[in-house]
Amino acid sequence: MARPRTPLLDRQRIAATALQLVAEQGEFSVPQIARALGVQTGSVYHHVDGRAGVIELIRELVCDLITDDALTLTRGTPWDRALEEWARSYRAAFAAYPRAIPLLMTNPVRAPKVLAHYEHAVALLLAAGFAEPDVMPLLTALENLILGSALDLAAPETMWEPTSETPLLAGALAAVGRGGRADAAFDLALAAFLSYARTLRDGAAFRGAGA
Amino acid sequence: MARPRTPLLDRQRIAATALQLVAEQGEFSVPQIARALGVQTGSVYHHVDGRAGVIELIRELVCDLITDDALTLTRGTPWDRALEEWARSYRAAFAAYPRAIPLLMTNPVRAPKVLAHYEHAVALLLAAGFAEPDVMPLLTALENLILGSALDLAAPETMWEPTSETPLLAGALAAVGRGGRADAAFDLALAAFLSYARTLRDGAAFRGAGA
Repeated sequence: MARPRTPLLDRQRIAATALQLVAEQGEFSVPQIARALGVQTGSVYHHVDGRAGVIELIRELVCDLITDDALTLTRGTPWDRALEEWARSYRAAFAAYPRAIPLLMTNPVRAPKVLAHYEHAVALLLAAGFAEPDVMPLLTALENLILGSALDLAAPETMWEPTSETPLLAGALAAVGRGGRADAAFDLALAAFLSYARTLRDGAAFRGAGA
Repeated sequence: MARPRTPLLDRQRIAATALQLVAEQGEFSVPQIARALGVQTGSVYHHVDGRAGVIELIRELVCDLITDDALTLTRGTPWDRALEEWARSYRAAFAAYPRAIPLLMTNPVRAPKVLAHYEHAVALLLAAGFAEPDVMPLLTALENLILGSALDLAAPETMWEPTSETPLLAGALAAVGRGGRADAAFDLALAAFLSYARTLRDGAAFRGAGA
C-alpha cells in the first residue's frame, strides 16, 4: 500500500515544531526541527522553501492569532477604532510568543496571508484620507510600539528594584500601584499614537481640500 | 609568586563575553562563558552573582552606550528635548545589540548604574510638572517604542515583498522612497509621544494650579 501523501499536515507540523523551538530558545534550525519530528533534515527541506520558508510558516501561525476583521473596509469600522482593535489583538498574539519577535521583525514578510493583512491596513488608511507617504511610517510606528509592548508584557510585574539611592524612582513606582503596569504604558502609547494620527489625517484632508 | 587578583578585569571580561554570546545567539549560559574564557564554570560564579548578575553586567555594558547627560536636571535642558536626546541615544545603543533586547526587557533592573539612570529620568519629569502616577507609564511607553524601533532598525530596508495581490501595499511602500524607512517610523512615533506628553503635563499643571 502506498504511503499517503500529507504535505499540508507536514507543513503544519513543521510550523508548530519550529514555533515551539523559537518559544523555548529564541531560535530554530532545520536539523533541530527534523530531530524533533524524527525525520531526516532533507525531508523537512522537501516541504518548505529553506529556512526563510520556515520563518514564514512561523509568521503565519502567530499572525493567525490576530483578529484583522476590523481592518476590513466593508465592515465600516472607523479607522481609529479599527487600528486600536487590531493593535490590541496584535499585541496579545505576540505576547504569547515574545521570543519570536526579534526573528520575525528582522526577516522580510513574504507570507501571502500576512501580506494580505498589510494590504487591508493600507486600504483602510488610504480610505480614511491619509496621505500615501504617511501610511507605512504610521503602520511601522504602530507595530514598533505594539511589539515593544508585547515584550514588556512578558516582563515581570516588578521590573525595577529601587534602592535607598533611588527614592524618586521608588515613589513613582508606588504611585502606579500594583497590577497593570504594562497595560498602563501600552494604553498611553496607543492613545498618543492615535491622537497624533488624527492630527496627521486632518492635515492631509485639509491639504487635499485646498489642492 | 602569588597570582595577581584582578576581580574588576574579570568582571569586565565576563560581561564582554556574555554580551558577545547574546549578540550571536540571543542567549548565554554561564558554562558557555567559562568555556569561552578557558576557565572552570565555578570560577565565573566566583566573580558574579549567578545568571542574574551576568544579565546586569550585560545591561550595564549596553547602557554605558546611552548618553544620559541630557537627563541631568542641572544641565537645564527642557524636559522634552532631554527625553528626545535620551531616546535617540537609547535606540542607537540597543540597535547595536538587538538580540539583547528580549533578555534585558524580561529581567528586572538591578544594576545600580542603570537604576540611577531611571532616577534621573523620574526627577526630570517630576520637576517638569508631570503627575507622579503618570511618570512610569510615560517612561515605559517611551522605552517600548524605542526598543521596538531598535529591533526595526536591525531589520532589512526591504521588509515587505509585495505581490500583484497587494497593489496598495506596493504603492504605499514606493511612496516612502528608499532609505530611512525605519527612521521615518521612529521620528513619527517619537513626535506622537512627545506631543501627547505635552498635553498630559499641561493637564497636570492646570489641575495643580487649581488645587
